[in-house]
Amino acid sequence: MRKEFRDLTDPAAAASLVRELAIEGGTETVPLADARGRILAERIDAGIDVPGFDRATVDGYAVRARDTFGASEADPATLDIAGSIHAGEQPAVTVEPGTAAEVSTGAVLPPGADAVVMVERTAEADGEVLVRTAVAPGDGIMVAGADVSAGERALGPGTRLTPREIALLSALGVEAVPVRTGPTVGIVSTGDELVRPGAELDHDSGQIFDVNSYTIATSVAEAGGDPELYSHVGDDFDALERQLKQAAEECDLVLSSGSTSAGAVDVIYQIIDEQGDLLCHGVAVKPGKPMLIGELGGAAYVGLPGYPVSALMTFRKFVAPAIRAAAGEPETDTATVPGEMAVEERYREGRLRLMPVGLVEDGDGETLVYPVDKGSGATTSLVDADGVVEVPPDTEQLDAGDPVAVDRFSAAIRPPSVVGMGEDDPLFSELLDRLARPRYLPLGTREGLRRLREGVADVAVAAGPTDIEIETVELGRWRREWGLVVPAGNPEGVSGVDQLVDGAVRFANRDRQSGLRDSFEAALDSIAEKRGTGRGELAELIDGFDLTTDGLESPARRVLAGKADVGLGLRATATDLGLGFVPVGEQAVRVVAAPDRTSKPGVQELAALLPPDEALAADLDGIGR
Amino acid sequence: MRKEFRDLTDPAAAASLVRELAIEGGTETVPLADARGRILAERIDAGIDVPGFDRATVDGYAVRARDTFGASEADPATLDIAGSIHAGEQPAVTVEPGTAAEVSTGAVLPPGADAVVMVERTAEADGEVLVRTAVAPGDGIMVAGADVSAGERALGPGTRLTPREIALLSALGVEAVPVRTGPTVGIVSTGDELVRPGAELDHDSGQIFDVNSYTIATSVAEAGGDPELYSHVGDDFDALERQLKQAAEECDLVLSSGSTSAGAVDVIYQIIDEQGDLLCHGVAVKPGKPMLIGELGGAAYVGLPGYPVSALMTFRKFVAPAIRAAAGEPETDTATVPGEMAVEERYREGRLRLMPVGLVEDGDGETLVYPVDKGSGATTSLVDADGVVEVPPDTEQLDAGDPVAVDRFSAAIRPPSVVGMGEDDPLFSELLDRLARPRYLPLGTREGLRRLREGVADVAVAAGPTDIEIETVELGRWRREWGLVVPAGNPEGVSGVDQLVDGAVRFANRDRQSGLRDSFEAALDSIAEKRGTGRGELAELIDGFDLTTDGLESPARRVLAGKADVGLGLRATATDLGLGFVPVGEQAVRVVAAPDRTSKPGVQELAALLPPDEALAADLDGIGR
Repeated sequence: MRKEFRDLTDPAAAASLVRELAIEGGTETVPLADARGRILAERIDAGIDVPGFDRATVDGYAVRARDTFGASEADPATLDIAGSIHAGEQPAVTVEPGTAAEVSTGAVLPPGADAVVMVERTAEADGEVLVRTAVAPGDGIMVAGADVSAGERALGPGTRLTPREIALLSALGVEAVPVRTGPTVGIVSTGDELVRPGAELDHDSGQIFDVNSYTIATSVAEAGGDPELYSHVGDDFDALERQLKQAAEECDLVLSSGSTSAGAVDVIYQIIDEQGDLLCHGVAVKPGKPMLIGELGGAAYVGLPGYPVSALMTFRKFVAPAIRAAAGEPETDTATVPGEMAVEERYREGRLRLMPVGLVEDGDGETLVYPVDKGSGATTSLVDADGVVEVPPDTEQLDAGDPVAVDRFSAAIRPPSVVGMGEDDPLFSELLDRLARPRYLPLGTREGLRRLREGVADVAVAAGPTDIEIETVELGRWRREWGLVVPAGNPEGVSGVDQLVDGAVRFANRDRQSGLRDSFEAALDSIAEKRGTGRGELAELIDGFDLTTDGLESPARRVLAGKADVGLGLRATATDLGLGFVPVGEQAVRVVAAPDRTSKPGVQELAALLPPDEALAADLDGIGR
Repeated sequence: MRKEFRDLTDPAAAASLVRELAIEGGTETVPLADARGRILAERIDAGIDVPGFDRATVDGYAVRARDTFGASEADPATLDIAGSIHAGEQPAVTVEPGTAAEVSTGAVLPPGADAVVMVERTAEADGEVLVRTAVAPGDGIMVAGADVSAGERALGPGTRLTPREIALLSALGVEAVPVRTGPTVGIVSTGDELVRPGAELDHDSGQIFDVNSYTIATSVAEAGGDPELYSHVGDDFDALERQLKQAAEECDLVLSSGSTSAGAVDVIYQIIDEQGDLLCHGVAVKPGKPMLIGELGGAAYVGLPGYPVSALMTFRKFVAPAIRAAAGEPETDTATVPGEMAVEERYREGRLRLMPVGLVEDGDGETLVYPVDKGSGATTSLVDADGVVEVPPDTEQLDAGDPVAVDRFSAAIRPPSVVGMGEDDPLFSELLDRLARPRYLPLGTREGLRRLREGVADVAVAAGPTDIEIETVELGRWRREWGLVVPAGNPEGVSGVDQLVDGAVRFANRDRQSGLRDSFEAALDSIAEKRGTGRGELAELIDGFDLTTDGLESPARRVLAGKADVGLGLRATATDLGLGFVPVGEQAVRVVAAPDRTSKPGVQELAALLPPDEALAADLDGIGR
């Protein structure tokens, strides 16, 4: 009998369901040297006084304070020296009236003494000491238990052990402490098409690397859980059933994740529904709708969506809090910061939206927030994001300037020092390695300039003849040689763009955002003019003109793989990949900044890497634009 | 020849000296599963396209988009089904004009097709599919490289690997990554009086536990270094010399720490000066003045002060940044927050002051800052602190309300949920275990009320007859039995306070901040009244009246140790320690909140644990006050 889940579960109800699964961690005892970062399982009371004795806090003379009454520089008190006590020694003398004992810092106060006069206020001669100041009882002494007294509550349960807590535990002589352990979390990865990283991939068979296994495993560890990665199984019912049951037996919580294919999802659904208890199928959240919540063989079970971004966002929202609670990790909101939307964003789903966002500081140091989304199949989105904004189901639109709360991926995350977007360029890419915390999205020249205008990018990189119609400050420029990338040795004898139109060669183009595409189309325009026709007509004649690719090297790599005869690209790319190159022209690469961002330290750091070359700039003026 | 260091080194110059020691870390390659939290040593470029093929993003039918032009619900296009492709399969069919192939999400787009129609917009019958919508080329497809394209810069050097970066590396099939390793840091601990935690301590000989070794070791690990703890040596010159030289040979940086005694410091000074290169002796900073900086046998050397608080503050200010730099850990200021001084604080030293501070949120959510200082010998100070305020050498005073920048010990630190100060009480101590992130300082009734008035404490615990002369809101109260703690069996036959005055018993008192002391003095007052004398006269007759101790259990523990015959304390303490008890009276314990703090969630959480007991309160009114 299969349960019906007609409606998507409300996100808050789904979160409660996961909480009620009662995932449990444990405790263990670890040596103090290994306790850093752990959470104390029990309260620790002081077992001893610290210090354990009345202790001299200065180098000097232990005295009876009454013997120094009235002593001064002019009229010092004279005391017989009865002996001396160093740190780590048991006093062998008693300070009788009219006597003193020499003590070093840290020494035990000898019997009879009730104060220590610091050596700087004394003078010694012939077995006597002159005391040039009066002291009160307790001066120069830390009494036993003054730091911590025996029986006192030292640390409460749930305390995270940092060097400061370890200092206190050391002082108390504690050498091992009871700490929390996280729940064991089994990760079962499914999907016939998935291959673990490190193995060989067969692109033609549609194989892809298993992103979720390591990502979820490290997320589990980050939340305080103990991840257990089970070997990959495909969509086979029996194998998957065995794997899930084994995981349920060995773990407190089982997570399945991996495939986006309906087949694998269906198999898991059936196993949990028939062999365990399925509590929820589908949550009103985007991304994350296909989530499963249930129990299997006494273990808690959550089925995460297959797409990596969806899996990670769902894990973070619904599963991580339960693992943290089981591990005793405190929930705090230190990661949440205010910001304002840099751009408008619309929502149509009527579901809670977990929107990955990037952060950028404007010229005034205010935090602007922009959505980061490359589609649900993308794995890079979250690398380009700094946190998440939760948009309520009934919000249809956020306008630029609207205030939002950003839950950063961690409290240590700051906006990048500089946010750049635009053309992909090998030289610029090298420069990025020399900056601290830059973010650069190679979205192409046009998109880069658009984002700069929106205020999302501090800096744009523009290549080719595109006019920069918005006000910018140029930070630097150089030129690069572009043309046609062909197989090594140029077997087809390609000599230029004309041949793409006239010959029977398969071409690989770049997308419309790219400055390379602009230069290529400008070259087509000149040919069209010579021939008295239009660019559109010529494009129709090129086999593969519409086959666009997103990456700078992608056309060249199609050539390398034998999937195209000619690819649009740079000489640098052809050289790197050991391919042939037919030069067509040069184009300028310009790095420009938004005028209000030029004083940002990150922008200035970038500008300093780009020495202005007036001669070069003049030289280039006629070439690229 | 001994170098002269007449002037203290400027803190900025000392920091430069440590930086110039050129402490170096290295790199290693770790499996992706172990890479969480590590810092990437090199830039990683994408080696493959992700996805590696044109990929169906929906379940449906792969088609030639041209074949669907004009198709609609009313007038669907009819296509022959040429076959099917599932995720992880190599397509065995080509989509010819007029045909379609069934595809599942994640499947390879078959040759000939340029779009996928989602299954919801189709109907299948008799080997044909009805397509009820028009699609454009690219619909329902993620083209090869759209997520990441081969050759693209994926992650820059210096990137910290979180689950998001691990997702990207997984997608690229990277199974092991080059990461930074921290420098090896040797920790040499000195001082004849120090004993490693876990060993037996001889209080009488002035032994104390070695606080600095584990504390500095875990601080080194926190900064990204690899700590190496050398076995403890005393102040013996030869042993210390051997140990330092071995550490210098095996490590990139050697830290010595431990003893506060002049002897040990002098020995180390001599070894570095004669065998190595001593660059700095003494820094104009408080705490931290006796710091040494130098080189020994090719390794960097820093001598930390002996007092734990000084050692940790000095390490944090001067050494941690160098270790972080060597380990490639980014320096950020995410831990710095603004606050304002809750109290006035004066400075006389003319040195840079590293002031440990606690944070407390006032009723409006503003962050107030107060100094935490129990004296330089204390080890608990830093547990009660949240961060550090640097006070410039020329600042003589900070006033309440002055703005300061607090460098929190970590970006994850928030002010405690509730800050309480006052009487130590066993029941209250149990209640604290049930609160999340409380801070409670058992400073005694009087000091607790004073701090509450200053705005430093949200809540005070008051015991005994002390009048609460400031406006407070009572959250709850209970009563406790106090009296005289005696050895088990009460061998001296102590029957009450009278006997302290009349007999020859050694007494252990509490300090003046304690509510127990107040009740005790009130009892003395009644005896004095009966006898027609004054309390002062009676106190003179008590052997040990002025021997005060800081902890609730301290007098009882003196009795237990045979150092006193009678101690002031609670019945609960006597019972816990298996001692005898002579009851003298009952006193009320009152938990009171500052009126402007009652709406703080932490205060409300505490109040909820203290159900008001009207009957009890009425009952107590005549007893304790």
